[in-house]
Amino acid sequence: MRLKQIFLTICFIGCIIFVHQVAIAQKSDPLPSWNDGKTKTAIIDFVSKVTDATSPDVVPVEERIATFDNDGTLWSEKPLYVQLFFALDRIKELAPQHLEWKTQEPFASVLKGDLKKAFEGGDKAILEIVMATQTGMTTEEFKTIVANWIKTAKHPKTNRLYTEMVYQPMLELLGYLRNNGFKTYIVSGGGIEFMRPWTEPVYGIPPEQVVGSSIETKFEMRANGPVLMRLPKVNFVDDKAGKPVGINSHIGRRPIAAFGNSDGDLQMLQWTTAGNGARFALLVHHTDADREYAYNHGAEKALEAAKVNGWTVVNMKEDWKTVYPPETK
Amino acid sequence: MRLKQIFLTICFIGCIIFVHQVAIAQKSDPLPSWNDGKTKTAIIDFVSKVTDATSPDVVPVEERIATFDNDGTLWSEKPLYVQLFFALDRIKELAPQHLEWKTQEPFASVLKGDLKKAFEGGDKAILEIVMATQTGMTTEEFKTIVANWIKTAKHPKTNRLYTEMVYQPMLELLGYLRNNGFKTYIVSGGGIEFMRPWTEPVYGIPPEQVVGSSIETKFEMRANGPVLMRLPKVNFVDDKAGKPVGINSHIGRRPIAAFGNSDGDLQMLQWTTAGNGARFALLVHHTDADREYAYNHGAEKALEAAKVNGWTVVNMKEDWKTVYPPETK
Repeated sequence: MRLKQIFLTICFIGCIIFVHQVAIAQKSDPLPSWNDGKTKTAIIDFVSKVTDATSPDVVPVEERIATFDNDGTLWSEKPLYVQLFFALDRIKELAPQHLEWKTQEPFASVLKGDLKKAFEGGDKAILEIVMATQTGMTTEEFKTIVANWIKTAKHPKTNRLYTEMVYQPMLELLGYLRNNGFKTYIVSGGGIEFMRPWTEPVYGIPPEQVVGSSIETKFEMRANGPVLMRLPKVNFVDDKAGKPVGINSHIGRRPIAAFGNSDGDLQMLQWTTAGNGARFALLVHHTDADREYAYNHGAEKALEAAKVNGWTVVNMKEDWKTVYPPETK
Repeated sequence: MRLKQIFLTICFIGCIIFVHQVAIAQKSDPLPSWNDGKTKTAIIDFVSKVTDATSPDVVPVEERIATFDNDGTLWSEKPLYVQLFFALDRIKELAPQHLEWKTQEPFASVLKGDLKKAFEGGDKAILEIVMATQTGMTTEEFKTIVANWIKTAKHPKTNRLYTEMVYQPMLELLGYLRNNGFKTYIVSGGGIEFMRPWTEPVYGIPPEQVVGSSIETKFEMRANGPVLMRLPKVNFVDDKAGKPVGINSHIGRRPIAAFGNSDGDLQMLQWTTAGNGARFALLVHHTDADREYAYNHGAEKALEAAKVNGWTVVNMKEDWKTVYPPETK
């Protein structure tokens, strides 16, 4: 009898500890890097009402779709899009096989380090750079090239890996949404095959939940098996009015929450908030020249629409306790 | 003490019952509509080895991707693709608004009920019919049209709903794979927006796991909000060499198992089986003129490739105990 009593007592204590831990977990802050205020409250209020079974706004789990822009929303996009840094490194790497680049723009200026001149050609120059450096190989080869580059490539200002230039508050937000049954997607103007090799370890977003711009690929049967070749031809531009198209094509459901930072995200936020029931739209406003960057350029229309429509705007400087994750030594 | 003893006895009995139920569940047949034989064994052996943590062939859950063709693989495709029956019904419905169709082919022949003549124009005629009946509306409007049609449209031979002309053994296979951690996708030559309104209730496959052919859509901001318009222009043909392209675009991972029935699936099966590690490819061979249809036409190359590569071939007549689900009165 003595032993049984001891056993039951241990069980009882175990029970109390367990219940206590659950209570702590439930009460703990899901967004610790967000300062208290109306932005954080708006996020938590939205998630609470669409997940509370007794709420008139509750949304079935399968319809809890949240879409996130990448550049400027999940990681820094300044001084250049990371995919452009990748392209510039590729030009340097491939230059020995392209002696004609020494005199051919925009490559000549890139090789001389004169980016201002290289990008004078605008979108056309950028497209030319992307096509010259990111097509002409198989999809598997490209994946390996990206995966190897992203392992060591560093941001010119902070000297941290690009994959560490992600916003800690947004990582917490992704996790918070997933813990509440959301499926989180990236919907970016960036290249879909540039993002997929690293979004799972960095953001917890698997390849099948990444939507982006793409070039055409072609199935070819070779002697040692089939490949998909990356062709130098634009297939789809997942930006601006392209974002709702990309969402419809890949997801086939309208998101109930969308997160962006620029005019490139305007239509995604319009499309998301035009659906029935509870909706949430958020813009990250870059207001923090000390810890990140401060700029409105390219976000003017989106910020204006946020004002008109009552969308949530993150004031990075005020709303975020920290910008990047702590450095791992 | 008496009470405590009764309580413990009840607990003990409960435990035994629970363990027994688990044992039954584990032993019960996951594919009851499949006859025992080498086809069923091949499926179960594959699933066992990729899910057994002690197996050298074990595959992480996130990589357990299985892709299924739809027409002829998950439901009957004879005497016509279901989407064509839909198009023909749409022509009859829209005819009063298109008096010119009375004399214009292929519409005139469709309206006269002469399908042979209507389809003499081949793919061009079919494309014309699809464009005339399935574009020019918003994506939301099209979804409603499809959802309403599929609720009542019936197969001309069996007089059953098309959604009941699905293969019971394949429904069990989909469920068996999902119970073993697989993500199941449809990868069909059919229209992606024709399938998405009903694949979740019928197959348990959500819209975001449906890949198919598509027309172009365009974002438009209207006075009462944004819409996506369906344009009469082909965007992507998810058939033959297009299937690996569609898989790469939508999923971004190579499947480890693929299921088809025709030459349109050949490249999907080649692409799937060319990956590293354990792979599985299966063709449904239509050999059952009594219970379904018997034909090789359009599957000659795929069946030949199955022989050469040792892919699993379902002999519908011998391998399936039943073809369709029991009728619900």
